[in-house]
Amino acid sequence: MPPAKRETITALAGGVGASKLLLGLHEVIDPRDLTVIVNTGDDITLHGLKISPDLDIVTYTLAGIVDEAKGWGYRDETFHALTRLAAFGRINWFNLGDRDLATHIHRSAMLAEGKSLSDAAESIRVALGVKTSILPMCDESVPTMIDTAEGELHFQEYLVKRRAEPVVRRIRFDGADKARPAKGVLEAIRDADRILICPSNPLISIGPILAVPGIREALRARKERVVAVCPIVGGKSLKGPSDKMLAELGYEPSALGVAKLYVDFSGTFVIDSADKEQANDIRKLGMKVEVVPTVMATRAQKRELARSLVTLKM
Amino acid sequence: MPPAKRETITALAGGVGASKLLLGLHEVIDPRDLTVIVNTGDDITLHGLKISPDLDIVTYTLAGIVDEAKGWGYRDETFHALTRLAAFGRINWFNLGDRDLATHIHRSAMLAEGKSLSDAAESIRVALGVKTSILPMCDESVPTMIDTAEGELHFQEYLVKRRAEPVVRRIRFDGADKARPAKGVLEAIRDADRILICPSNPLISIGPILAVPGIREALRARKERVVAVCPIVGGKSLKGPSDKMLAELGYEPSALGVAKLYVDFSGTFVIDSADKEQANDIRKLGMKVEVVPTVMATRAQKRELARSLVTLKM
Repeated sequence: MPPAKRETITALAGGVGASKLLLGLHEVIDPRDLTVIVNTGDDITLHGLKISPDLDIVTYTLAGIVDEAKGWGYRDETFHALTRLAAFGRINWFNLGDRDLATHIHRSAMLAEGKSLSDAAESIRVALGVKTSILPMCDESVPTMIDTAEGELHFQEYLVKRRAEPVVRRIRFDGADKARPAKGVLEAIRDADRILICPSNPLISIGPILAVPGIREALRARKERVVAVCPIVGGKSLKGPSDKMLAELGYEPSALGVAKLYVDFSGTFVIDSADKEQANDIRKLGMKVEVVPTVMATRAQKRELARSLVTLKM
Repeated sequence: MPPAKRETITALAGGVGASKLLLGLHEVIDPRDLTVIVNTGDDITLHGLKISPDLDIVTYTLAGIVDEAKGWGYRDETFHALTRLAAFGRINWFNLGDRDLATHIHRSAMLAEGKSLSDAAESIRVALGVKTSILPMCDESVPTMIDTAEGELHFQEYLVKRRAEPVVRRIRFDGADKARPAKGVLEAIRDADRILICPSNPLISIGPILAVPGIREALRARKERVVAVCPIVGGKSLKGPSDKMLAELGYEPSALGVAKLYVDFSGTFVIDSADKEQANDIRKLGMKVEVVPTVMATRAQKRELARSLVTLKM
């Protein structure tokens, strides 16, 4: 049998939820055949340091240094600097570990030296020995702002400080209209054999990526090659507040509800076996549907889902 | 007997050497009666962070959190961030502990918000519970540049990276001519009952303070109240490369040599018992001379020298 042709894969990703799948992909294909386009709407500047949570989660995960229990930050991390920052009256609701701080300091120093966010992501990826390409969605700052009953909050204030409790009225990607896809992003969508939408929050992880002018259009042009993995299983988020946010914004918190958000650019929709009764309704939208186990509690489940995705016929 | 009138004391200080005496003073007088004017010529921006080594050494020492063995930084410090910064290819010859980083991040963030170095020093002092006033010599950046046989180096490059090995040809306080004494500095010199010049390097710890326009003149106007403690004992520095630098720049590396540098503004010169044979030559310069033990290896010796200084007749 001749060796299978090696496929290149491009994945759109948020943070913790996406990283489980990326870790599985990283183990079932050659990491160099994978490119990840990462949400940077979660980015925030704190204490003068530019923090890119999703870029770091993806990079740390693929580098094998992430704290797997938490899904973010370094394993066996210390938080001495954060304790002292709090003593200076600085905010401490956003966790910054001592090792992790070096990433933010390095990134901020590179930006201050005139380098781009892409340059910083690349420098960090290389230093941590990750072979997969990791691209920010754009180099511009496009903070996700959440309009709530308590007023408009930066996404991190909403998620971390207020624990996603305020009712969401509207989501705004501030400055997205003036942003451009980062170097390599459109090419990675155009040239990949397969494009995966990771099981991330459709509104605030995948949504910001889609809001960068040109990216949604590029995906539409490759629709038959786009496979989206539903982050809602049995009406609940696999991770984070997707279900609550969907409901508060008038979307159906179900596989079908997410499928409707992706139908214009995703040819194939992957749902969990628990939602198989929704398969026909999703097919009626014009999508192919794959029903596989999508819950990834173990390393084996991550690999298994990854294998399903890289082998499914489109 | 009526209570002794409480004197106010202003001290000019560098880092480690000065802090020994300041710790003694802090224990023999009310800390609120002491004001310290600190050298900021050693300041350096690394990784985008503004680092003020002497301000921090003085503040940490008086806060009781300093690593006494090293003389700088936090006690029981970790260096996880520095290790990671090195992995990103950033310089790591300048030690930055994890707790210590919070100070630099806080200071840099305050400066970026438009606050002054004085504001940052005050914020750090208050947060660390220090009652003594700690003033930078000026708010402007006045880096000490060392012209050597290897070219001009920032003072920290010369001292820390190159371990004070290159031969010094000239010292330049870059931008000093455009600097102004920080808020409170001239008042602290004008109003103090006693002004102490700590046993710091005369060239690169006290020298930068004297180079800020107005400070040397203010000291001259209070000459009878100025008491300088000689940092050279038996022809050797108590700490650091003072002796070597003095010799390389053509000054005599002795108590008499330092006295000549201070004679225009210091009425009293304090030398160690080891140098008592130089007392007469120093008196011939027009200074009063006090001969006391100035080596401060123990806490008791720090207090003892401090007590000598606050009680000596001027």
